[in-house]
Amino acid sequence: MSLHLPRRGRRAGAQSSRELILASARKLFSEQGYDAASLRQIARGAGVDAAMVHHYFRNKDELFAACVELPADPRAVLADVVAVPVDQRGTAILLTLLTLWDSPVQPALLALVRGAVSSRTQAALLREVLAKRIVGVALLDLPDDDGGKRLRGSLLASQLIGLMVSRYVLRLEPLASASHQEIAALVGPTLQRYLTGPLD
Amino acid sequence: MSLHLPRRGRRAGAQSSRELILASARKLFSEQGYDAASLRQIARGAGVDAAMVHHYFRNKDELFAACVELPADPRAVLADVVAVPVDQRGTAILLTLLTLWDSPVQPALLALVRGAVSSRTQAALLREVLAKRIVGVALLDLPDDDGGKRLRGSLLASQLIGLMVSRYVLRLEPLASASHQEIAALVGPTLQRYLTGPLD
Repeated sequence: MSLHLPRRGRRAGAQSSRELILASARKLFSEQGYDAASLRQIARGAGVDAAMVHHYFRNKDELFAACVELPADPRAVLADVVAVPVDQRGTAILLTLLTLWDSPVQPALLALVRGAVSSRTQAALLREVLAKRIVGVALLDLPDDDGGKRLRGSLLASQLIGLMVSRYVLRLEPLASASHQEIAALVGPTLQRYLTGPLD
Repeated sequence: MSLHLPRRGRRAGAQSSRELILASARKLFSEQGYDAASLRQIARGAGVDAAMVHHYFRNKDELFAACVELPADPRAVLADVVAVPVDQRGTAILLTLLTLWDSPVQPALLALVRGAVSSRTQAALLREVLAKRIVGVALLDLPDDDGGKRLRGSLLASQLIGLMVSRYVLRLEPLASASHQEIAALVGPTLQRYLTGPLD
């Protein structure tokens, strides 16, 4: 590739090519979802060669991460959670996410939520992040009872998003100052019920 | 009052006086909260006479509602909920709010949430709305067990905000298309636990 596009990253037009690719990717990911959008389509939308996409982004995954400016890959963050039996996973997910939210990446995560609330495109991207990278991981090994798995995922996401917004954006007290262990005791059972409890 | 300020609402400077009052009120409500901010202070902050505030707004309540541009007074909306026994109130609150969210005022409510997520001042105003007008009503008649009532309120708010954002902003499926009765069966028990269940 370096033969075809030598030092492309250093040249004047480079930034705009990368930006064009990102803009096309954001559009296609948000319209079609992560799985359906192809690198070929994204390149076409940006008016560049497919090789150019590969020059800037190792793969579709890396391109997606750049689109949403994720400060950390949630799947890596949640890797240990998968090892926790499903009947104890609610609290494990919560403690892992609280550690992430209260880490130096917090501003980037809040920017992601702010973007999603104010833009349809970014809302669609956050929806993909939630579905594929957070909820998807949380639901690993759960049986798919007639579409119930997706419903469980969206319920789980609803409480996680609400907790994040109330604690870090609205700063509702005493939730905003509560310790991770306190929140785990309070909200963990909700998540566990959404994951494995009866749904009606 | 009309003697002192005849036809003020029709004159050229009127709009800006009203806007100055609203700006001052938003600042003071968000900095000090609804209870602590006085109409006198708000008038002073706007550089107008206190009588001018009363000219535009009947009382502090009406001024606050104008600040946050609430399309409906949540306390009026939730009035019937107060009559529901506390041990069944979780589902009652949820059904009432779902009816409100799925009514023509939805865009105004989403604007309120969007504003709160992108501005600190508006976040503080929404916090007041939640505390005084939604959670406060939901928690009526509950005993205040050593500050536990405030904690219950913030937990309740966390699930309600999360549901609103996932269903109407992120449009997470199948939650976005679920019927009110379905959501009541799924999320009602969470709200009820936050209201009256054991907290640890």
